[in-house]
Amino acid sequence: MVLVPSISVTQDPVEAADVAAPRDRETQLSKFSQTLQNQQRQQARVASSGNEEADTVDSEKTASLTERSRWLTTAPQPPSAWHEVVDYLRGVGLPSGSKLSSLNKKPVTQRVACVLKATFPVLQWCRSYKPTHFKNDLMSGLTLASLCIPQSIGYATLAKLDPQYGLYTSVVPPLIYAMMGTSKELAIGPVAVVSMLISSMVPQIVDPGAEPVLYRNLVFTATFFAGIFQAVSGLLRLGFLVDFLSHAALVGFMAGAAVVIGFQQLKGLLGIAHFTNRTDVVSVLQSVWRSFHHDSWNPYNLLIGSAFLSFILITRFLGRRNRKFFCLAAISPLISVILATVLVYVTRADEHGVKIIKHIKGGLNPISAQQLQFNSPYIGQVIKVGLIIGAIALTEAMAVGRSFAAMKGYHLDGNKEMVAMGFTNIIGSITSCYTATGSFSRTAVNFSAGCETPVSNIVMAITVLMALELFTRLLYYTPIAILASIILAALPGLIDLHEAYHIWKVDKMDFLACIGAFIGVLFVSVEIGLLIAVTVSFVKIILISIQPGIETLGRLPGTDTFCNADQYPMAIMIPGVMVVRLKSSLLCFANASFIKERIMQWISRDDEGERKIDDFQTTQLIILDLSNLMSIDTSGIASLEELHKNLVSQGVEMAIVNPKWQVTHKLRLTNLMSKIGGKAFLTIQDAIDACPNAKLASI
Amino acid sequence: MVLVPSISVTQDPVEAADVAAPRDRETQLSKFSQTLQNQQRQQARVASSGNEEADTVDSEKTASLTERSRWLTTAPQPPSAWHEVVDYLRGVGLPSGSKLSSLNKKPVTQRVACVLKATFPVLQWCRSYKPTHFKNDLMSGLTLASLCIPQSIGYATLAKLDPQYGLYTSVVPPLIYAMMGTSKELAIGPVAVVSMLISSMVPQIVDPGAEPVLYRNLVFTATFFAGIFQAVSGLLRLGFLVDFLSHAALVGFMAGAAVVIGFQQLKGLLGIAHFTNRTDVVSVLQSVWRSFHHDSWNPYNLLIGSAFLSFILITRFLGRRNRKFFCLAAISPLISVILATVLVYVTRADEHGVKIIKHIKGGLNPISAQQLQFNSPYIGQVIKVGLIIGAIALTEAMAVGRSFAAMKGYHLDGNKEMVAMGFTNIIGSITSCYTATGSFSRTAVNFSAGCETPVSNIVMAITVLMALELFTRLLYYTPIAILASIILAALPGLIDLHEAYHIWKVDKMDFLACIGAFIGVLFVSVEIGLLIAVTVSFVKIILISIQPGIETLGRLPGTDTFCNADQYPMAIMIPGVMVVRLKSSLLCFANASFIKERIMQWISRDDEGERKIDDFQTTQLIILDLSNLMSIDTSGIASLEELHKNLVSQGVEMAIVNPKWQVTHKLRLTNLMSKIGGKAFLTIQDAIDACPNAKLASI
Repeated sequence: MVLVPSISVTQDPVEAADVAAPRDRETQLSKFSQTLQNQQRQQARVASSGNEEADTVDSEKTASLTERSRWLTTAPQPPSAWHEVVDYLRGVGLPSGSKLSSLNKKPVTQRVACVLKATFPVLQWCRSYKPTHFKNDLMSGLTLASLCIPQSIGYATLAKLDPQYGLYTSVVPPLIYAMMGTSKELAIGPVAVVSMLISSMVPQIVDPGAEPVLYRNLVFTATFFAGIFQAVSGLLRLGFLVDFLSHAALVGFMAGAAVVIGFQQLKGLLGIAHFTNRTDVVSVLQSVWRSFHHDSWNPYNLLIGSAFLSFILITRFLGRRNRKFFCLAAISPLISVILATVLVYVTRADEHGVKIIKHIKGGLNPISAQQLQFNSPYIGQVIKVGLIIGAIALTEAMAVGRSFAAMKGYHLDGNKEMVAMGFTNIIGSITSCYTATGSFSRTAVNFSAGCETPVSNIVMAITVLMALELFTRLLYYTPIAILASIILAALPGLIDLHEAYHIWKVDKMDFLACIGAFIGVLFVSVEIGLLIAVTVSFVKIILISIQPGIETLGRLPGTDTFCNADQYPMAIMIPGVMVVRLKSSLLCFANASFIKERIMQWISRDDEGERKIDDFQTTQLIILDLSNLMSIDTSGIASLEELHKNLVSQGVEMAIVNPKWQVTHKLRLTNLMSKIGGKAFLTIQDAIDACPNAKLASI
Repeated sequence: MVLVPSISVTQDPVEAADVAAPRDRETQLSKFSQTLQNQQRQQARVASSGNEEADTVDSEKTASLTERSRWLTTAPQPPSAWHEVVDYLRGVGLPSGSKLSSLNKKPVTQRVACVLKATFPVLQWCRSYKPTHFKNDLMSGLTLASLCIPQSIGYATLAKLDPQYGLYTSVVPPLIYAMMGTSKELAIGPVAVVSMLISSMVPQIVDPGAEPVLYRNLVFTATFFAGIFQAVSGLLRLGFLVDFLSHAALVGFMAGAAVVIGFQQLKGLLGIAHFTNRTDVVSVLQSVWRSFHHDSWNPYNLLIGSAFLSFILITRFLGRRNRKFFCLAAISPLISVILATVLVYVTRADEHGVKIIKHIKGGLNPISAQQLQFNSPYIGQVIKVGLIIGAIALTEAMAVGRSFAAMKGYHLDGNKEMVAMGFTNIIGSITSCYTATGSFSRTAVNFSAGCETPVSNIVMAITVLMALELFTRLLYYTPIAILASIILAALPGLIDLHEAYHIWKVDKMDFLACIGAFIGVLFVSVEIGLLIAVTVSFVKIILISIQPGIETLGRLPGTDTFCNADQYPMAIMIPGVMVVRLKSSLLCFANASFIKERIMQWISRDDEGERKIDDFQTTQLIILDLSNLMSIDTSGIASLEELHKNLVSQGVEMAIVNPKWQVTHKLRLTNLMSKIGGKAFLTIQDAIDACPNAKLASI
């Protein structure tokens, strides 16, 4: 790869002589020829063809264009597939790689400091931490806690765990993440979707009703593996893994999950005793219907629930409309919990069938390390659950974190985030927490409450901890319906109809993935929903890359640029020459023979409909513009060869233009270059100039 | 889509005025500006920058290039996905479509005649059939029969059917194909691979030993469905379906099948009584070992088999070396059958443990229509088997037919072939034939015996028929070992090591598909082998289309063409400008964010290693050449937007160049065009000219 700042040539010709010499000759010559060529073409257009000037030029021109086509045919060997992979991995690893390389010069102490800083961003930002920051963080942290406490309890029940485990999950994980995470706003803790995932997958292994302890331990174990998966993929710099659930799929999945969660809240809202373990809408509605039928539900629950739900929604509406109501909106869940609890306590409504939380075990997170079930018979299923939960949690956290980081205009390091989330959950799993991640609703609150640093997470954690120590007994009379309404209030944030419409507008196939995930989650199960989404996304990739089809190119007026004649209606076809470009990026077993047939059809006489050039001018030259082609396989090469044979048998010349590096290499490996008489050129114009009859025709 | 033969402009300016007018102005103007631009750049290179002449030009040049970029941004809306599909299907259907359209003008009788001719090519070639043709066809037909009779019996036993069914399959199918097929050489009948497929899949449904009749009926039924599948996909013009088993996969599959068949022949060769029904090498060798252990095999079989095998191989070797031994090579199987039969008859070797065919039922094909098991409980599995057999049979027939057609320089219509094969098997299935297709070995013999038309197939069929009527009793004493050696002799043709090496040389990933199919067939089962092959092929497509990575482009000396700087070492980088092209053909969820990161790394200061341009010149303009991009999805667009934001925040301009039609459309739909300040250009040169600082730097 030579680099010659154009100036240097004149500054000192010797320095870059080796390169400059040929380049200069080249430049002079082809500039000259080009200028004349233009004139010539101009004159030619005014129908004065073949003056001796043109002749003298021709020789030089051909010289330069053969030179150019030699560049093409004698290109160096491309990097091997192995080399590509290594290069790719280096690219993936670069951020850390470059750091480490720069480290090696420094003394040990500094290196350690550097590594520590890289692992614990807290060491960086705590230096520049100011009291003003703390004021904001304190406020937002408290607001966060007021929303977090009821939500945590609600999500714990959603995950079929005792309420305190939700609170535990809001204590340790936020502290860990505050040390290791790179996002300033992300509010860590239990979230709706993950809780729903747990409650939909783990009960397939053991029945939470029958064996609550084993169920809980399996949940911890799954959390542990989720953490391992996240940390490992972060350390191995597999940050791109989270990208494999496409945006469209995620939108559909989230919406589906939200609806499912909503339906599940009917249990709490109606105070239904016996409820299905399955998550799909059908069986949920069935069991609701059954409970209606057997009248095993209680209107008071519905009354309380819906009353406070509307209260929360109204306050939020006000908060949106008017900034000064924002704080009210944020703490309205806590208010409603308190009010509802007092109400029930005063009216003793629990004796009239209102379901209440009853006892919540208080105190600090107990250690759960010895409860992880590594040698249980279910370990295989648990690992699978862990992977799914880990992936979804990660995807959600990244999506939320990135969107808010973008608002504040800083960048999240995907791999670092993964490591942070991973350790958060690993340590969580040994301190009685279930899988934690970044909650959308709470992060939004945190952001609008004006948090400055992860300190707001710390404040929240401490507040929740104090609540655990002191106030759990006060939650005895809290009605379960209120938890349902708090969860319901958090759901709309997960459904993004506007985005779905946008996807529909931009790409129908993406929308298919989106709606597929939605329906899959809604009517079958979470795994199926994800499976559908991923499958559709990849089938789309295949379809696009092998879509057979060709487009004719025409010259844009006043340029040497050739473009798709349908895209640029002003493009001019050259009589007697047909410039064809493949629409697909691969010429492979799946489309090669079809494309060959198609081209033969176009030039064969018996379908005028397809012919783009007028009839009195028969095609003398087919130019295959291969610039699209990423790769060609044996079938593709075979079909190119066949095409060339057929064309020659019909007295049509064939030239290929601007094949990519890999393709050029393969064409040379298989001697196709020589088989087509070396008719390979850099530009379409060169190809036309090189073919005498065609040029004559084009003049 | 305008078409203006350049001549017409001068011939009569009025006729094409609307187009010519702007074009001419365009041409004049930009030709002028281009010429001067060249001069200017030349002068600039000699370090005399900015003369007023250049200034005057600049305004015009910018005018023309804004004009050009307007063409890009105001391109008409691309055809919808639906339109694409319709167009594609029309493309698939075209051959017939065009015929029919041309038909509508003609009277009914002619139309019928036309359709008949299209369905029965025999009506076309029989007109021009000459006695000389018949002489050759007769000879080749007889040679074919001499090879076909022993092979058919052998393949029937391989398919676990009574010998006569192999002979039946060599009577009816060739006749049908001779009427409908378009290939002149293809020798139709039972083949090794299909027989092996049947014997490996149908026994999983019923045990041929326990219920021979049901087994046979299921084989007929499977054949029927294979025929239906073939005919239907031919009528629906799904000819491309056969392409979905890539060439590489087919090579591997054939080789694997050959080896498996070879091992299976150990049964006949050793005269083993109890042999496994499974086809994988391991269980075959196990049962061989067991029979050795229990000494339940007979050396005489091995003796006879290997003796005649070597005889056949030697004659073939001679035939290859010397043309006049060819006939001997062709009939050597028949000779060895006769000799072996006589030998056994004379020596009564069958009483010493030499296994013989015993009774073969003679006479014409019995009708088996009423034996098709449409309402059996196994129908589902049978249909599946039928589809697999049909696909494989078709693929083999097409591969063989095409290769020989290419030798004689005529073209096979894939869809017609499919219809022909389909009806061949449907009618075969109701006349006691199992699945027939084009045999490689026999087609080769047919070809070298100098056949002219499908008549050779007819001759063969009639000969076999006579054999069925007259000579079946003579085959009573034919040792089974001889059949094994005849099958073994036919196998080497299926193993193409040279092609495998070629695939390895050209494309490692293709080779993976090849070897995957081979190993899958060899050690697991036929279905698994096929599954591996197809999976690998499509995973390859995905990997290629989403491979992340970018390449820097440089200007080729003396041209306005920009090419990959690594592929063309003579390319010159423009200081201050970085021209980047994606290596992948899609910018989608799977690679978008990675590619964004990569570009940011390249321009960010902290990795000199990656920087292609020298340091005193900081990058002022990033040009994204999107000409590779087939499609972009929502994630891709989002990442482009983010990239633009980041670049702007670093004071770097970003321009996109030559996006494809669909991409342009989506960029417009999502307002990205306007978000990047309409910096979209047709050519890289335009983009450079449009950016003042960059142009200054490049001068």
